[in-house]
Amino acid sequence: MPDPVIPYKIYLQENEMPTAWYNLRADMKNKPAPLLDPETKQPMTKEALSAVFCEELVRQELDEDTAYYPIPQEICDFYKMYRPSPLVRAYCLEKKLGTPAKIYYKFEGNNTSGSHKLNSAIAQAYYAKQQGLVGVTTETGAGQWGTALSMACSYFELDCKVYMVKCSYEQKPHRREVMRTYGASVTPSPSTETEVGRRILEMHPGTTGSLGCAISEAVETASKHEGYRYVLGSVLNQVMLHQSVIGLEAKAAMDKYGIKPDVIIGCAGGGSNLGGLIAPFMGEKLRGEADYQFIAVEPASCPSLTRGVYAYDFCDTGMICPLAKMYTLGSNYIPSPSHAGGLRFHGMNSTLSQLYEDGLMEARSVVQTDVFAAAEEFARVEGILPAPESAHAIKVALDEAKKCIETGEEKTILFGLTGTGYFDMVSYEKFHNGVMSDYIPTDDELLEARDTLPKV
Amino acid sequence: MPDPVIPYKIYLQENEMPTAWYNLRADMKNKPAPLLDPETKQPMTKEALSAVFCEELVRQELDEDTAYYPIPQEICDFYKMYRPSPLVRAYCLEKKLGTPAKIYYKFEGNNTSGSHKLNSAIAQAYYAKQQGLVGVTTETGAGQWGTALSMACSYFELDCKVYMVKCSYEQKPHRREVMRTYGASVTPSPSTETEVGRRILEMHPGTTGSLGCAISEAVETASKHEGYRYVLGSVLNQVMLHQSVIGLEAKAAMDKYGIKPDVIIGCAGGGSNLGGLIAPFMGEKLRGEADYQFIAVEPASCPSLTRGVYAYDFCDTGMICPLAKMYTLGSNYIPSPSHAGGLRFHGMNSTLSQLYEDGLMEARSVVQTDVFAAAEEFARVEGILPAPESAHAIKVALDEAKKCIETGEEKTILFGLTGTGYFDMVSYEKFHNGVMSDYIPTDDELLEARDTLPKV
Repeated sequence: MPDPVIPYKIYLQENEMPTAWYNLRADMKNKPAPLLDPETKQPMTKEALSAVFCEELVRQELDEDTAYYPIPQEICDFYKMYRPSPLVRAYCLEKKLGTPAKIYYKFEGNNTSGSHKLNSAIAQAYYAKQQGLVGVTTETGAGQWGTALSMACSYFELDCKVYMVKCSYEQKPHRREVMRTYGASVTPSPSTETEVGRRILEMHPGTTGSLGCAISEAVETASKHEGYRYVLGSVLNQVMLHQSVIGLEAKAAMDKYGIKPDVIIGCAGGGSNLGGLIAPFMGEKLRGEADYQFIAVEPASCPSLTRGVYAYDFCDTGMICPLAKMYTLGSNYIPSPSHAGGLRFHGMNSTLSQLYEDGLMEARSVVQTDVFAAAEEFARVEGILPAPESAHAIKVALDEAKKCIETGEEKTILFGLTGTGYFDMVSYEKFHNGVMSDYIPTDDELLEARDTLPKV
Repeated sequence: MPDPVIPYKIYLQENEMPTAWYNLRADMKNKPAPLLDPETKQPMTKEALSAVFCEELVRQELDEDTAYYPIPQEICDFYKMYRPSPLVRAYCLEKKLGTPAKIYYKFEGNNTSGSHKLNSAIAQAYYAKQQGLVGVTTETGAGQWGTALSMACSYFELDCKVYMVKCSYEQKPHRREVMRTYGASVTPSPSTETEVGRRILEMHPGTTGSLGCAISEAVETASKHEGYRYVLGSVLNQVMLHQSVIGLEAKAAMDKYGIKPDVIIGCAGGGSNLGGLIAPFMGEKLRGEADYQFIAVEPASCPSLTRGVYAYDFCDTGMICPLAKMYTLGSNYIPSPSHAGGLRFHGMNSTLSQLYEDGLMEARSVVQTDVFAAAEEFARVEGILPAPESAHAIKVALDEAKKCIETGEEKTILFGLTGTGYFDMVSYEKFHNGVMSDYIPTDDELLEARDTLPKV
């Protein structure tokens, strides 16, 4: 019998969509280290975290045992407006490359936020609404998370205050208008609105900002406004939980056609997409049911996994957040302004860090001109104009597919295409005009950034 | 037996996708009037048209008899990269409005061109490649068509020269970079590159351009370069033919679930989306098999159907193109610069014009602040940020759904959501800041614009 013919795009039926999120930590033998209170160095309690985060989200953050969380019906309904996302077989790309590899990508860009971020935004807004809150605060880098949260808050009629990393705010004025369309307020960070913002501006006048700094401002604002909590679009384990919908859908679609990936590739900033994409596959690996090669791809200018240290660190530049044990460059590390777009976070989700530490996952870093060249190569054949973040995964997927030409291996490659680049045309323009440079921090720079690592 | 549950999004399977385009003219008793030679006033011959257009496209343009054109396999394959597009049941919008109406929209924005334009672009590029051409020229208004054609040309490795209406070029610099990503050259129109451009600049210094003017420039450039032909993204019957894929898919999806629309609504500039969406439904009406209400929605600032005349006119400002019998404001009509985005064409596809003349279709005009308010209302509930063009259809769909609240009718409404507004944030910003004005031309202005109507 011949294999079933694989369509260009596999869409699950609505009744085949996941009804529960998967909590990868439940299957880990070596659990990620707990969050610590920055003052006492003791594990953060539910009560202390609930001053900053929504209660149900705190429960999810701390829960290492429950494997499956049923997705509330209201969230399932919202998911149905833009999910299932397609699992695409890149037939045209394979043909163009002349590779024997079979390339698949899970495309999360077909929604107005332009990325996978909406998967967690709607969950977080839902729990905020359930708790009776007035609104939420957050940070955004490239703008996808801020847009996603604006959409989610608009849907549940919550107020939404967004601190946007200044360099992105300036590079992407149109993102601001999208967020305003959904009723959010957007402030460039660092700002003079918060104590921590004013302090950072004093220490680093002219800074273009960082995610870590914007996080500090959003946390401070939430703590000073009655009825507000802070929400975060990456890094946290609760976000990984919600994003597992990516991997669960991808796996269901592959299982439906009897496809088993050999290599799974995702870009990694804070880790939300990578963690979500690999979750059910890594679960099988942890349980000894199957084996896969996992590759995290990060920018050479912000190389937390490939050149960072595994240590307790602050998640924010202002050093007011709990300490997480993770691969980190130091909370004071700010990527060069020449670095385009997202994946700017100095650390990495603690679960992914533990998996990397345990040798269950690989990591590669790539320079940005290679990333944009890969983005253009992909766009011209597969149609979709990728976000620069997503193009990190494309770059390594192309590398792997090209290797197969030499070796003759018919590897099945799965990568996460997290989003579209429609709001990144300033960076594309730099690339087209040949004025994009590749920045790689020196060892000395990295050593210096680690000065701020807390003693634990 | 209960009705089958209608999913939020109906995706056809790939083997359910249309394999032939439908040529509505084959079922019309009153055929659209033929194109005329502007000098002799005689019907354009195949030979004369082939100097400007690709041969196969000329055949399609002139063919009033063949009902179905099989879609070539290469085009089917490309379609599979971004089609089928979803038919969406707007459950969330219905709930928010509290309407007994059932609202569906066919969403064509989930591709990098951001609109339905890619459906015809890939067909036209295919036929150009088949003919052994070097490249094609075209005009673009809001930029969707230019982007679509760039993508299609990149796929078939054809050169692509785009003349972009100057006001859009300035409002949407990022569109230019998207086209460059796909290897196209983009020139603001009117330009000094062509004779007609120089003449228009002399007559109207400081003009913000018009589609009619950009068409003239693209046609001139094609005629002066060996191995080039001109291609057009709307207005022509060949484009309507390719765009029938929208309606065929929508109808197949509805038939699959036993849904019959009562009202079908589309925005109308040159008519390509409207014509494509309504094609198979109008075919049924023409053959007496079913009845539907059709509503074309146009901007109050460019009201060709509602305030134009049905007459032979030039399709371009430079008056070098064939004459088409259509509803027109006069080829010299240029919408106010305060008019945001697309739907700027002075005329209307000749087939749609004939259907309107025969009373088979209605038309409404709407002012742009109402359009943007409808866009925002829609975005906040359904997630998708619509293109201003598409929002014309949304505005009337909302009007119809709100009427049903009063009358209690459970009408089934289908509208075309042609694209996304990610590159229209300058216009959204004007709307947010309250500096968007509604322009409605006076009767005198419209009379004056008709001065250039040719005597036939």
